[in-house]
Amino acid sequence: MAATMIQKLSGNDENGNQVYIKRDDLLPFSLGGNKVRIAEQFYADMRKKGCDTMIIYGSRHSNLCRVLSDLCCSRGTPCLMICSHEEHEDTSPTGNTHLIEWTNTEILPCAKDEIAQTVDRAMAQVRARGGTPYYIYGDRTGTGNEGVAAEAYAEAYGEIQEFECANGWEFDYIFCPSGTGATQSGLICGHLLAGDRKKIMGLLISSRETSRARQVIRTGVRAYFAAHQAIPPDCLEDEIILLDQYRQAGYGLYDERVETVIREQYRSNGIPLDPIYTGKAFWGMTEYLRTSGIGHSRILFLHTGGTPLFFDYVMSSGAGQQENV
Amino acid sequence: MAATMIQKLSGNDENGNQVYIKRDDLLPFSLGGNKVRIAEQFYADMRKKGCDTMIIYGSRHSNLCRVLSDLCCSRGTPCLMICSHEEHEDTSPTGNTHLIEWTNTEILPCAKDEIAQTVDRAMAQVRARGGTPYYIYGDRTGTGNEGVAAEAYAEAYGEIQEFECANGWEFDYIFCPSGTGATQSGLICGHLLAGDRKKIMGLLISSRETSRARQVIRTGVRAYFAAHQAIPPDCLEDEIILLDQYRQAGYGLYDERVETVIREQYRSNGIPLDPIYTGKAFWGMTEYLRTSGIGHSRILFLHTGGTPLFFDYVMSSGAGQQENV
Repeated sequence: MAATMIQKLSGNDENGNQVYIKRDDLLPFSLGGNKVRIAEQFYADMRKKGCDTMIIYGSRHSNLCRVLSDLCCSRGTPCLMICSHEEHEDTSPTGNTHLIEWTNTEILPCAKDEIAQTVDRAMAQVRARGGTPYYIYGDRTGTGNEGVAAEAYAEAYGEIQEFECANGWEFDYIFCPSGTGATQSGLICGHLLAGDRKKIMGLLISSRETSRARQVIRTGVRAYFAAHQAIPPDCLEDEIILLDQYRQAGYGLYDERVETVIREQYRSNGIPLDPIYTGKAFWGMTEYLRTSGIGHSRILFLHTGGTPLFFDYVMSSGAGQQENV
Repeated sequence: MAATMIQKLSGNDENGNQVYIKRDDLLPFSLGGNKVRIAEQFYADMRKKGCDTMIIYGSRHSNLCRVLSDLCCSRGTPCLMICSHEEHEDTSPTGNTHLIEWTNTEILPCAKDEIAQTVDRAMAQVRARGGTPYYIYGDRTGTGNEGVAAEAYAEAYGEIQEFECANGWEFDYIFCPSGTGATQSGLICGHLLAGDRKKIMGLLISSRETSRARQVIRTGVRAYFAAHQAIPPDCLEDEIILLDQYRQAGYGLYDERVETVIREQYRSNGIPLDPIYTGKAFWGMTEYLRTSGIGHSRILFLHTGGTPLFFDYVMSSGAGQQENV
């Protein structure tokens, strides 16, 4: 995979910081985004484990499910999606919903408190057809595959190092949205292996408990190191930095401050950000930089993609929709 | 501008052709597409001519208007858009409509037979405010700027040559959608200057008369050469190749054959094509290759972008909309 570009953003930071963005939204498969790298890791792991049918899990907004559905379709691999929803949740189709329908992926709808049972049902269904199922998150409780997704950004970290090397300086901070924690775990692995002085800053975008989010990242990093016959250094705990004050009312919820940042970035840099992940995280980063006293630093924001969510927002923006997607 | 990637498409061509695609949809500004390169040329020409206010023209689907609006916005340049519509045309907002609204661009609605008068009005309006207007197509009749847009793909042709050079072989054909003719004109200029043996194949996507389309391309190429103090070689007439049998019922109209190709390319290569430009042209190319006897050739399709139109289609596809956008 060719390295994605890193570009400097226009616009002045009042504290003299220089802000760059890594355009993983431009990865060339299935509308791009961090999930392209992560999907490739899950797919490779499935093959390594001798499985032939992919079972994926996510909501109707899920970028990972879009990319994995498409990847499986392009390679002739059957795919089942456990599609979670909260009771009373809006279930109108999103761009990702439609795109998943274009593939061969079979949908199993599932209430949020019935995931384990639905995983069981999906696994049994695949076996009954003579297939060997692979559930991306491991066993029925979502345990056992913690290190796989971290591989993606442990590897992509090398692209950031190459950029730094070519420029003769290092970033001081990397900011990224933190949802499942897989991207942040991978960046932390890359950082620990490089032994550099950067700080990896995750911006929580959902209402996941902060302690739980820390634990998921810790487990991901440890599993990655274990898979490489190593253990993470003692400083790991200090390297897990989560900003939980910018999640607003929770996953998928945002107010006009996030909307303003989305329009500003489109207007000043022609860059699409969505309100659920990248726009909310970018807003959080901006607020954090403004209030934390960080100055004259080199900042990298990882654009984790989600172009379909950007268009969900664009198409709804005429309706003046706010506070909720 | 960094070169966009050229990738080989999966899928077998029954005549043994190898089909590649150049991903100009991934150009990193304003959702990408050929219009990013073309907009930069118009903007540079505006500055060169000492003007300070951009006047643009297009329909509510217009990718060029999206990109030029955003480019002007990002550089603090005022912009007016003459927005054309046919009588009885569906005028519901598209992705591009919304994105243009996000910028500072002022909209002047205009019936298709009142363009010259509306250009006059826009120019007068700018002058009354003390500005110096630049109309991208030249004078009120759209004459005088024919060579500007051709610069974009005359320049981008170099990227294709670099790819060929690195691989040690040349493409036999380059296919592209032909709407305004600017992209094809540019490619023909690049080809004539290189003196290579490639054929540049334009697929007409609108109901513009073929003879008129030829004339626009001829004028574009001649104007480009004139701007570089040269005249095009005598063979120019033979180099303007337009396929007009794949336009279906005209601009914006398409049937299920185009839809099938769009889904196939998404499913097999994760590539978004839209039904108005790239999907229709890709379908036309596929039909042409199947029926023309071309075999064992290296084919390049230029992906001219239009991601917002892809999402207009995706979001409407649940409704089973066909035959018309």
